[in-house]
Amino acid sequence: MVIFEGKTDIFGGITVRSESYNKVTDLKQSIRDSLSEWKSKAIRGIWFHVDIKDSWWIPVLVDEGFIFHHAQSNYVMLTKWLPEKEENTLPRYPFTTIGVAGLVANNAGDILLMKERRGNYLGWKYPGGAAEPNEDIFDAGIREVFEETGIQTKPICILCFRHFHGFRYKDNSDLYFVCVMKPVDENQIELNPCPRETSACCWMSREEIAKLPQEEFHNFHRSILERYDKWLASGRKGCHAEQFNVPELKKQKKSLLSTNSKSKITTYYTLHIYGYGERVPYAPNRRRK
Amino acid sequence: MVIFEGKTDIFGGITVRSESYNKVTDLKQSIRDSLSEWKSKAIRGIWFHVDIKDSWWIPVLVDEGFIFHHAQSNYVMLTKWLPEKEENTLPRYPFTTIGVAGLVANNAGDILLMKERRGNYLGWKYPGGAAEPNEDIFDAGIREVFEETGIQTKPICILCFRHFHGFRYKDNSDLYFVCVMKPVDENQIELNPCPRETSACCWMSREEIAKLPQEEFHNFHRSILERYDKWLASGRKGCHAEQFNVPELKKQKKSLLSTNSKSKITTYYTLHIYGYGERVPYAPNRRRK
Repeated sequence: MVIFEGKTDIFGGITVRSESYNKVTDLKQSIRDSLSEWKSKAIRGIWFHVDIKDSWWIPVLVDEGFIFHHAQSNYVMLTKWLPEKEENTLPRYPFTTIGVAGLVANNAGDILLMKERRGNYLGWKYPGGAAEPNEDIFDAGIREVFEETGIQTKPICILCFRHFHGFRYKDNSDLYFVCVMKPVDENQIELNPCPRETSACCWMSREEIAKLPQEEFHNFHRSILERYDKWLASGRKGCHAEQFNVPELKKQKKSLLSTNSKSKITTYYTLHIYGYGERVPYAPNRRRK
Repeated sequence: MVIFEGKTDIFGGITVRSESYNKVTDLKQSIRDSLSEWKSKAIRGIWFHVDIKDSWWIPVLVDEGFIFHHAQSNYVMLTKWLPEKEENTLPRYPFTTIGVAGLVANNAGDILLMKERRGNYLGWKYPGGAAEPNEDIFDAGIREVFEETGIQTKPICILCFRHFHGFRYKDNSDLYFVCVMKPVDENQIELNPCPRETSACCWMSREEIAKLPQEEFHNFHRSILERYDKWLASGRKGCHAEQFNVPELKKQKKSLLSTNSKSKITTYYTLHIYGYGERVPYAPNRRRK
């Protein structure tokens, strides 16, 4: 029989990866023997990272009391919590999607609006969509506005965001950020929307917007426009992104900044903090893509 | 053989649930026959929602070219994209965790700080932690500050938030919101932290904080305190939560507010928008729990 070995974590758990084992002749018995061993050592959370090519392991692990934790395209992570008298404290997998929309006005004060080709709401809306992995909020806004309208923009600030529960899957939520943005070239008025996503797209005057019936321009979008006007009147305060350097946490143990030890590597990287400090020019972060 | 039936979606896809089938004698052939049928009908994205008790389906689906989309504790969702000449446009599962911290000051201006029992950073920090499913940002802040320190607080505003990529799992990110909060009872100074999570907890004066070395109070936390001082000096502007009613999107088709049709039910529900409008008193949303 195999007693599985895996990576231990600071929370008293262990992660076994199926790819580390070429051939396991009696998987069921190996799991049982390993569980006995781990229980005797007071190990807490067991994680099995099952590669898609080893997916026959999944029903065997389920038979031994494992449940699913999460999956990405090429693996399923299963878990089992061993302490009998302690509540399960394994961290949850993310359950929040990030959406970003651009409230783009041109020099004349017209607002950039579009209509989706498919979806639950088919009236006019601000161009926008889901952020991609490792994408900053402003970068997602720039990309989505360009994809849906053909207009290159730069971000000014985050105007507001909405926290919405019950989105798409059970217990999932959505954060929808509305960014004030302006065209890079104020003279570019020509639109070039993606025909697969966009069924209509235009610069619309405030008078035209005011005349739209509710089913063509939802109250939610209208309230954002009211908020934009308040923001304009307030002297352009808003939530800006600032670059900030923090040391890499993962490379170090106990203490964060103990650079006096030669064996430890302190890697600094840059992240964005969105807040009310001094505004710095926004530099789209292409490095992480 | 069985030709699977499932729920169609507005994007031209279909979702099959394993629980709908008591017994499938030849699963492999049934999947193959169903795929042929769906291809002939130009169906786009195929989704298989496999209940944990049917997890023996998973390796069979993988053999037929399905990949994992996501999993929750009791099921795995697998997908296959059928159009051969079109890019896969199936939406991604969430990849962002939400964390909330409370910057709590008492009447004397002392700041509430704590130290985690386990983690990568074991210096002083603001109390906080991961939001739970369906939990609003301020509710998460109230709960986490209470769990980690025993202090009941009310939220004032969101001071700033950090967007951090590469968090825990591949391609995962984290949004960490810092809320300005004040004690419900300004005279409550006694702390009552959770011993499993908290190793130390105190009200610390600004003078004491200034003397802490970097490894005991990270520059990131110090920068938040600087931002807090700017916010205090600015006359208390910040990102507030407002309640806002929007109609339920899912109950309706084509147009959002067509309440003239008797067959359609318009359900209004409340959500919070975080932004710079008129401030309304924050009412914790217990309804959704």
